[in-house]
Amino acid sequence: MTRILTVEDIDDIAIGAGILGTGGGGDPLIGRLLVQKAIRDGLTVTVVHPDEVPDEACVIASAMMGAPTVVVEKLPAGEEALNSLRALETRIGKTADFIIPMEIGGLNSMIPLLAAAQAGIPVVDGDGMGRAFPELQMETFGVYGVPGSPLVVSDANGDHVVVETGDDNVRMESFARAVTIRMGGAAYIAEYPMSGADVKRTAVAGTLGLAQSFGAAVREANQAHSDPIAAIASVVQDSIYGYAHVIATGKVTDVQRQVVDGFSSGTLKIAVFGAEDELVIDFRNENIIARMVDPAGHSEVVGVVPDLICVLDSDSGEAITTESTRYGQRVTVLGISTPEIMRTPEALKVWGPRCFGLDHDWTPLEQLAAPKQAAPAP
Amino acid sequence: MTRILTVEDIDDIAIGAGILGTGGGGDPLIGRLLVQKAIRDGLTVTVVHPDEVPDEACVIASAMMGAPTVVVEKLPAGEEALNSLRALETRIGKTADFIIPMEIGGLNSMIPLLAAAQAGIPVVDGDGMGRAFPELQMETFGVYGVPGSPLVVSDANGDHVVVETGDDNVRMESFARAVTIRMGGAAYIAEYPMSGADVKRTAVAGTLGLAQSFGAAVREANQAHSDPIAAIASVVQDSIYGYAHVIATGKVTDVQRQVVDGFSSGTLKIAVFGAEDELVIDFRNENIIARMVDPAGHSEVVGVVPDLICVLDSDSGEAITTESTRYGQRVTVLGISTPEIMRTPEALKVWGPRCFGLDHDWTPLEQLAAPKQAAPAP
Repeated sequence: MTRILTVEDIDDIAIGAGILGTGGGGDPLIGRLLVQKAIRDGLTVTVVHPDEVPDEACVIASAMMGAPTVVVEKLPAGEEALNSLRALETRIGKTADFIIPMEIGGLNSMIPLLAAAQAGIPVVDGDGMGRAFPELQMETFGVYGVPGSPLVVSDANGDHVVVETGDDNVRMESFARAVTIRMGGAAYIAEYPMSGADVKRTAVAGTLGLAQSFGAAVREANQAHSDPIAAIASVVQDSIYGYAHVIATGKVTDVQRQVVDGFSSGTLKIAVFGAEDELVIDFRNENIIARMVDPAGHSEVVGVVPDLICVLDSDSGEAITTESTRYGQRVTVLGISTPEIMRTPEALKVWGPRCFGLDHDWTPLEQLAAPKQAAPAP
Repeated sequence: MTRILTVEDIDDIAIGAGILGTGGGGDPLIGRLLVQKAIRDGLTVTVVHPDEVPDEACVIASAMMGAPTVVVEKLPAGEEALNSLRALETRIGKTADFIIPMEIGGLNSMIPLLAAAQAGIPVVDGDGMGRAFPELQMETFGVYGVPGSPLVVSDANGDHVVVETGDDNVRMESFARAVTIRMGGAAYIAEYPMSGADVKRTAVAGTLGLAQSFGAAVREANQAHSDPIAAIASVVQDSIYGYAHVIATGKVTDVQRQVVDGFSSGTLKIAVFGAEDELVIDFRNENIIARMVDPAGHSEVVGVVPDLICVLDSDSGEAITTESTRYGQRVTVLGISTPEIMRTPEALKVWGPRCFGLDHDWTPLEQLAAPKQAAPAP
């Protein structure tokens, strides 16, 4: 199942990773261009499934850290992620055999491909988030016992910082975040050094392939003038995510955004077509909760983190990030459920609704969508 | 000239280091108690002069980083500075033969003694600041070409961060500062790994001894009911600092303090005894400029950084930090000139008045104090 990615594959992955970004994760654009240039320059991006990674292999997670919006104005020098990889290898006294994406959603689908191509090693088809999340402790690797540190964070000047917090991934996140801000708001990390056995046990498997399938489905539907969103939902049903449904289709009527505690937080309102209802989505980098509000003001939760609330362009099926949402856009909100590995009690302790300041427990998307049962007669 | 410090020596050094703190650097109290406990527990603090350090020896600078006021409420666990030393040794693949204080002024006179006693190695009698300064690039080591990084910063949890910025000590300061804040506002560093030859070439030599001589002079003057401040000035005259004079004696009439950009900034006003003048001292952690203002409002600079502007208790001769300055205190402001190694063009580029936001060039204290010459007749 080892395969080599083409420039066209990268286009598809970028589209799919935008969808898996669930509003956040940043536009993959800059990363896509860098990876495609690397391929055109003769480098190779090889992808292997987690099952193909030997148990004793050394695997390192790679990502951009910080504000994806910064990357658009402050382009990477190009070798930051590789520099972090090399410094982490030096620290642990091992050479990486594989790179694994930290986060499949958004820009971070691309950075690991670049680092792997530069290092001449394969990328594992999987990641630690199965979507986009805002913080480094929110990774399946950490949820299932892999320490995130030592972590290396590098900038475009060739400087780097090594963070050593043992198995305390929250403090690791805090220290790396502080340095990233001083590095100009965007930096490149290598973290969660682990074995192939760890990868098989802890990664969300197949997410690079899933992103690519999303992108291919969207591309092909657009070529065939068929419904790209139905095509995405159909890909989901054949994946470990398993369930997707359209929460609403409508028009963006309002977006409120502010930066709170370093997060881009706000609310998006959508007038639902063919109904009097309004869909209200709160976001904190990513979309975290969607509520359907009827004209009388009664609201009902219709999707909540960690399930994916994907705001898509109704025509093209491509993702609209929270930053690029504008009044008047015609959007379809697609809910995608999370795979089993992301909905265990251990996982929900790290990225359940309360981790995002919501006063809600998690109810699975498929359960929220089920027809309401009348209360049994007394 | 190797000598072993006693509990009483530590008392004297703490008093002298307070004076060399020139308003900042923090009260040495907590550090003094930790070092004295270490000595009482059987550890040894050995001091050697830079001339005794072999050229090829490995020397590492040690210090607390952050807000000394935090240390009073968040006591160190006790081995943070040693942990940083050990992690830096691992990073550079060498074992330290000596520790050198980063900063003789204030609390940081004590932290390196503790780390050295714990590591079982001697302390070099000298430092990188010759006083207290607020930032890590403000060290003679860096001024004369020793890279500050790799630097290690450790906290009480046993976590640490390695900062690698090559020879860019300003970025090193920035990254280490950001982490220190996340570590709770006070952390412990090992930095500027260097050779014995580097130490001889770049350190401000003999400052631990100078602090101790200051402390002894104050103690003996108090016992003899003689003038402690005259005793300090007399010690200065026999040192590489060379020159001291009383700028003013008076009563504190006003203190304005605010935290700006992480610095404790403000202004201190002193009604000068036996004159209508007011002495106005601006501080930014440390006292940075003193101006004599006459009743008509004409002001004249009478001391400016890097020269030491030391506000001392007129009775005891002990230092009053900018945090502990209060209305009504009777104070004597002693100016102490800086040694040659701290007043070269390279040095003034790093800690001249403009590095503290002052729109002044540096004029040496002894020149400011010289009787004004009438302008020559035309």
